This record gives sequence, structure tokens and C-alpha cells, in this order.
Amino acid sequence: MRATVLHGERDVRFEDVPEPAILKPTDAIIRLSATCICGSDLWPYRGLNDIRGPLHMGHEYCGVVVEVGSAVTSVSPGEFVVGSFCLSDNTCPHCRFGFQSSCVQREFMTGAQAPFARVPLADGTLVALPAHPADDLIPSLLAASDVLGTGWYAADAARVRPGATAVVVGDGAVGLMGVLAARQLGAERIIAMSRHKTRQDLALEYGATDIVVERGEAGVARIKEMTRGVGADSVLECVGTAESMQQAVGVTRPGGMIGYVGVPHGVQFEGSKLFGAQIGMLGGPAPVRRFLPHLLDLIVQRKIDPGKVFDLALPIADVAEGYRAMDERRAIKVLLRP
Amino acid sequence: MRATVLHGERDVRFEDVPEPAILKPTDAIIRLSATCICGSDLWPYRGLNDIRGPLHMGHEYCGVVVEVGSAVTSVSPGEFVVGSFCLSDNTCPHCRFGFQSSCVQREFMTGAQAPFARVPLADGTLVALPAHPADDLIPSLLAASDVLGTGWYAADAARVRPGATAVVVGDGAVGLMGVLAARQLGAERIIAMSRHKTRQDLALEYGATDIVVERGEAGVARIKEMTRGVGADSVLECVGTAESMQQAVGVTRPGGMIGYVGVPHGVQFEGSKLFGAQIGMLGGPAPVRRFLPHLLDLIVQRKIDPGKVFDLALPIADVAEGYRAMDERRAIKVLLRP
Repeated sequence: MRATVLHGERDVRFEDVPEPAILKPTDAIIRLSATCICGSDLWPYRGLNDIRGPLHMGHEYCGVVVEVGSAVTSVSPGEFVVGSFCLSDNTCPHCRFGFQSSCVQREFMTGAQAPFARVPLADGTLVALPAHPADDLIPSLLAASDVLGTGWYAADAARVRPGATAVVVGDGAVGLMGVLAARQLGAERIIAMSRHKTRQDLALEYGATDIVVERGEAGVARIKEMTRGVGADSVLECVGTAESMQQAVGVTRPGGMIGYVGVPHGVQFEGSKLFGAQIGMLGGPAPVRRFLPHLLDLIVQRKIDPGKVFDLALPIADVAEGYRAMDERRAIKVLLRP
Repeated sequence: MRATVLHGERDVRFEDVPEPAILKPTDAIIRLSATCICGSDLWPYRGLNDIRGPLHMGHEYCGVVVEVGSAVTSVSPGEFVVGSFCLSDNTCPHCRFGFQSSCVQREFMTGAQAPFARVPLADGTLVALPAHPADDLIPSLLAASDVLGTGWYAADAARVRPGATAVVVGDGAVGLMGVLAARQLGAERIIAMSRHKTRQDLALEYGATDIVVERGEAGVARIKEMTRGVGADSVLECVGTAESMQQAVGVTRPGGMIGYVGVPHGVQFEGSKLFGAQIGMLGGPAPVRRFLPHLLDLIVQRKIDPGKVFDLALPIADVAEGYRAMDERRAIKVLLRP
């Protein structure tokens, strides 16, 4: 089959690779209904991560099981499944505590920008739908695999409660999903920080009540003013830079929580500053598996429409154009059809 | 009257000072039933904080109201009151959110190592008992003013839940109160890190189930082993050094919370490390006022006995000896009788 391989900076190819096969009894092979490009794929694409040898790209996926290993009992060939980008056994103490992204057997999914993919730890990772979904639900189900689950975790970690004031830092796909999650969790006021018209529009559609275009100190000052000097109960940090984290810290009220899901790059915290400001924090790779059953329910019942976050859909053979579109910020998130 | 004044490094004197007076209509004057020396008083005593001019020491207090300003309505002369070391109006948005230690009018109590003291923001700060307490309850009521409330906040911020495994880093008075709080909040396993026999004994009396004498990496390894590699749900950091915080981070399970109440000295957090370990954190000066009514209830009903943390009681005229005893770790905490 042909699949997506990154060979070096901005050198992404759709080329012949071996078909995936069951390597362990706990594996499953799925035929992808759709896959997509993640903001985090841009780090190696831009040469910001070291690349040692060709990388089989893609960690977001949904589709139909075609084969399972001998130990797999919870999913069967023919079933439609969604799984997290974090592979987990869902039975270890960390999984049972709801932090499947720290599973003792954790692996990260790879090779999903392809027509077929191997999913290790299938029993703990995959959630099967009761029936095959309508085609128009595929983008939303795909979003659940990472960006929706990650935005949801940001809101959960930031302890969004009914009536809360939430701030979302970052207007990428995860930030927009954070807006959706904050709304679902009952936030009364949701302030999205964004300076891009299309993203602002989507944020408003997902439930944002206010848009702040200012950044840095001006953005912090604006939000302080909007909250009468108090700050926000819950802040979703969905970028991961030192600057975005500074914004998050600046707008959080004493006793408020920051849920941070942007992988930190060069972020340092000064203990005495966090102490004085009484800011709570919880972050990390999202335990998407914890939320998946609930999220899939919401999608199948058409209560949420996270799939709108895909504003460009391409045949997977055009994956290189998809990377370019995201790199140049012409697209929020690119869906690939195998 | 004579009261406690710090003039320089290790130069603490009990000397003539003006009697406190109502300066603002929101003030109250109390006659102290007892006061005490705090671990944090040792920072300036040891010359580790800059001292500009004589300091009127003491921020822990309980006693009888002798006079109130014209605006005070919730306490009256003759009532027995306890207040927090943080003075707060208890009406601003931060107070109503339960973070009175970030009150927009916040001040810190001073001058309480004395027979009489002025308490600003009396309505928001003081809690009156329904009747004068028995004498033997005074030490416990005094403890509620800071160390008990601070240990309780550490357990609350670390989200100790029934059945939880909690680790307490630090065997000073606050750490011991953290053990008591974790027990009251239903922790099933409470691991106290301590290498001093008398403190270990008190920790066990307050509800610790395990004592770990190792420190640093050895301490972390020991606790990891005791928790089958999982780590603790809740960690109470009651010291504030880089070393103690490293221990706290090392023993917290993914998704667990650190409640930190030791004022951080030289503590830095690396964002990517906290992210990868999925460690939650909330700290700061304790909003003791939030917990005071509940704590006073528990004390008056004799359900807890935090006063045992005072292992030396002196006439206040001997306050200099009290500082020496705490400085040399001959005493956990010194109570002063005016």
C-alpha cells in the first residue's frame, strides 16, 4: 500500500510501504475511514524535532476492524472503531485512575496517515460503535481520536464547572475543541483568544461568548478588564509556548486552574510566583480514552459537531499539499480520505 | 505593654511598645489568650530575609475581643475569637471563591506575639466561638489560626479523597497538621516523611500509617516501592525548598495533585517535565478563613487535638528562648502565654 512518510524537513511523501500486519496477539488492523494531520505533526515537518530515519506519520484514526490478534476480545472484524492517539491497556493502575495517557504499557500511535494501520493494545485502546455510523459523522468521530479528546481534557483539567468563566488560549483545532468542551461542561462565559476571522467564527459557533484579539500583556489586561479584575476560573492552554503559558498564568484567578495540553516548549515556572498567585495547574498528553465513550455518544446523538474543525479535506494521495496548507495556516486542520 | 520585636539576626527582644489602638473603623483589639512562634518567623530571625527596621513579630492568635471599631458588626467585646494570619474582608470575589488569602484587601497579621493585638478587617477575619472555650482547648484553637488551617489547605489543594494514598513531605508543625487533615478527609494511607523520633510519634498519633525516613532520591524510591510503582494520589508539600519539591514531584502519580504550602525558596518547575508526568499542583498562602468554622467545630467537639503540636510552652517574656528552641529544633512549635 501507499502511506505517508516524512523523510526530512518539509519532505513528506505518499509512497509504497509494507502493509501492516499483526505483530502481537493484542494488535488489531483497521481500514481507515478517514485520517488527518495534527498540529504536532508540523514540529518534525518543520525540522524542529530531530528526525532519525523516515517517519511513518499519523496518529488520529477511525475505521473498520479487518483483523485482530489472538488475545483481542473486545473488538471484532467488521466493527467500526475509534481509538486514542495514546495506546493503553486500560487496566493498569494509571488507566483505572483515568490517566490512560500514562499507562504502564503506553505507546503512541504511528502510521495512521494510511489506508490501513496497526493498532497495538487494541482491547484497551479501541472503542467500537454499536453500528456503522452515517458518512457525515466520520469527521466528528475522527476528531474524537485526538483534538476533541485533548480539548476536552484541557477543560476537565481546568475544572470547568457550570457557570464558570473560561479562557481558551490558542485558536488551533485543540483550542476550538476546548471551546466546545467548556460549553458542554456548562461554562457560562467562554473567552476565546484569536485574531483569525475563520477561527473566531468557529469559536463563536462552538460556544465562545467573547473573542479577544489582543495578545501578551495587552491580552491579559483585556481579560482582566472583562472579568472586573478577577480573572478566569478555568484557563485552557492549548499552545505550549512560553508566551502562551504566560498569558494563561496572567488571566487565571487565585484558586483557578490551568489545564494545559499544548506540549511545552521552553516553558518554565517560577515556584514563588505560582504560589503567590495561587494558580492551580494540571496538564499532559490527554487521556482521551477516558472520555471516548461519552464523546462518541454525543457525536452519534448529533449533540456536538466537532468535525467542522476540518476546513480542508483531501484525498490521502495529496497529503503533501495538506501539510503545506497547515504549515502556511491556510487550513485549521486537514482531513485525509484514504 | 511589652511585646516581641526582632531587631536583627537572632536579636529578638521582649520590650516596651505602644499599646495597640483602633486605627480604622474595621479594626478590633483583642487580648491574646495565647500566641506562638511560626516556622516562617525563623526566616527573618536567621537573617535570611532582609530586615529594614524593627519587626513586630507574631501572626497567630486567639483571644477575647476588648474593643471594636465603629464599622465592626460581627464580633463584640467579650467574645472569644480566632482569626487567620491572612486578614481578609471575606466579601470580595476572591474571598467568595474560597481564596481569602488573595483577598483584594489582604493584609498579613503582625504584632501578635504580645498581650494585645490589633486585628484589621475584623468582620471578615475573625470567627467568634458561641462560648468561651475550656482552657485546655486554647492550644488547639491557636493552632487553627495558621498551622492547622495551612495543613488543611495542603490536603484540600492536594484533593485528598476518602480512600486516597497521601504523602506528607515535611515533619514540621504544618506537615503534622497535614497528616491530621489527610486523616480527617478520609485518606486510607498516609505516608509521613520524617527522620525525627518525636515528630514520627506525633505523625503516627495524628493518623500516619507509614513513616519514611529516607530523603531525596532514596525517599522517592522507597515510596514508589511502597505504592507498587504507582505513586501517591495526593502529596502535601510542607517545606518549600527545591529539594522537598523534587521529592513531592517524584512521588506523585500521573493525575495526582500536589498541594504546596511551604513558601517556595528557589523552586523552579520545568514545564515539559510536569506535562510528561501529568502532575497537578495548587499552592499558596492558605485561605485559612475558609476552613475556620469547620476546624473550630472539630476542636470544640474534641474530634481533633491539633494543640499537641506545641511541645514547648513558655511565658511570653521568655520569647527569645522560644525562638532559640525552634531555631535549634529542640521544639516543634512554641506556645507563648501572655
